[in-house]
Amino acid sequence: MQDINSFNAREIREAFRGGTLSQPTPGLAPGYVQANLVILPQSDAFDFLLFCTRNPKPCPILDVTEVGDWEPRQVAPGADLRTDVPLYRVWKSGTLVDEVTDIRDLWQEDFVGFLLGCSFSFEAVMLAAGLPVRHIEEGKNVPMYQTTIPCQSAGRFSGNMVVSMRPLTPKQAIQAVEVTGRFAKAHGAPLHFGNPEVLGIRNINSPDFGEAVTIRENEIPVFWACGVTPQLAIMKSQPGLAITHAPGYMFITDVRDEELTFS
Amino acid sequence: MQDINSFNAREIREAFRGGTLSQPTPGLAPGYVQANLVILPQSDAFDFLLFCTRNPKPCPILDVTEVGDWEPRQVAPGADLRTDVPLYRVWKSGTLVDEVTDIRDLWQEDFVGFLLGCSFSFEAVMLAAGLPVRHIEEGKNVPMYQTTIPCQSAGRFSGNMVVSMRPLTPKQAIQAVEVTGRFAKAHGAPLHFGNPEVLGIRNINSPDFGEAVTIRENEIPVFWACGVTPQLAIMKSQPGLAITHAPGYMFITDVRDEELTFS
Repeated sequence: MQDINSFNAREIREAFRGGTLSQPTPGLAPGYVQANLVILPQSDAFDFLLFCTRNPKPCPILDVTEVGDWEPRQVAPGADLRTDVPLYRVWKSGTLVDEVTDIRDLWQEDFVGFLLGCSFSFEAVMLAAGLPVRHIEEGKNVPMYQTTIPCQSAGRFSGNMVVSMRPLTPKQAIQAVEVTGRFAKAHGAPLHFGNPEVLGIRNINSPDFGEAVTIRENEIPVFWACGVTPQLAIMKSQPGLAITHAPGYMFITDVRDEELTFS
Repeated sequence: MQDINSFNAREIREAFRGGTLSQPTPGLAPGYVQANLVILPQSDAFDFLLFCTRNPKPCPILDVTEVGDWEPRQVAPGADLRTDVPLYRVWKSGTLVDEVTDIRDLWQEDFVGFLLGCSFSFEAVMLAAGLPVRHIEEGKNVPMYQTTIPCQSAGRFSGNMVVSMRPLTPKQAIQAVEVTGRFAKAHGAPLHFGNPEVLGIRNINSPDFGEAVTIRENEIPVFWACGVTPQLAIMKSQPGLAITHAPGYMFITDVRDEELTFS
């Protein structure tokens, strides 16, 4: 079998679709935008689209499918949202009830698929600009924290912001604002730096998701809005049925990272 | 009565709300973002929000109200979409049936209001950067053209792109791309420059809306996506009922132009 590391986005989706492969997507198809997935019935779709529109930093919209359509025609023509994600999570009334590699059996005529930007895109560009990304250096998952900052609610959807953190020197933080600010569709510029308590984070060494990373003497924690925010909103808002990707098992689009910077 | 030219955004909205004043808004409350307005019943709201999401250049979303709520809480807390626009248009099945200065009698419990960015914001910044805006120099309305470029359709909404045109030298055009590219929520960077036929425009001196302007020897026409696009989509897609602003009679928000450049 050919090495998956040489595959482009479409080839990786097809490998996942075949069902022989299921693995986390960080590092796969470098340069291609990876996306968070949320699938909801039409009855909840307007509220959720409005939630994303009102909270573009945690929920930057890359593509939304037509009612009943599993093909994300803007970012991956020919792809199939029912099969092309390596691992799905099924939520009933806000509770995780199953993890599956294929949702063809669960698909409904009234489903709408939402693909939302993720921080992998700007991390690649940070690294290319010579900025450190500590959790990659340390071979860990990015540290993520629940905050006490509420999102703008929309219809039935509400919840607090989740943030990811990367330690940087002040000079690096300034450069990171410039670099990531160009990627509005991948969470954009940071939300905050410095004192974690401003966000309601009590212990920076004890993240709610992912793993703690080293913060050096001359560094401050820098916080970005995080794509886990919509999953938390789904847990809190308890729509009857929702399907998402499993954390780290993203949908890989045909869009190149740099395309996200166009106005 | 106090001079309206000294009013801030809120004061102007209140003057319109009182019903004693109805005038076009260009030039009013300089520095404040002006917005296109579309109001639709909830049954068409998801399709229209998706249409805007898929066509962010002609339809950049500034705010969307909750079902039944006339207050645009994100961009103008305390404002009233039923009264604060100086002139409204009422559309039935895609046909213009009335122009009114107040829609309190027409308001329905299922209405959703959409405020979309407009080019006034980037024109102010172009002028500040020393770039010419010909229709302002010549005291005219901006020339606008229907194109043969289809928007991405969404549910019941489809239509071709409408563009506005400003003549610039190549050097100015490059600077204008940089300046306006920062204003993704006010149509962003141009779509095209040069040969109008690429967009299906037969006669640059005969715009479909607004007025023709002088294009000098050393200049090329530069084309931006235009906020008339959603009105054309409404005419073509014929939702049962829609209310919009009348061209040039915009909703004035509390947002400052420069705020639109944040990621």
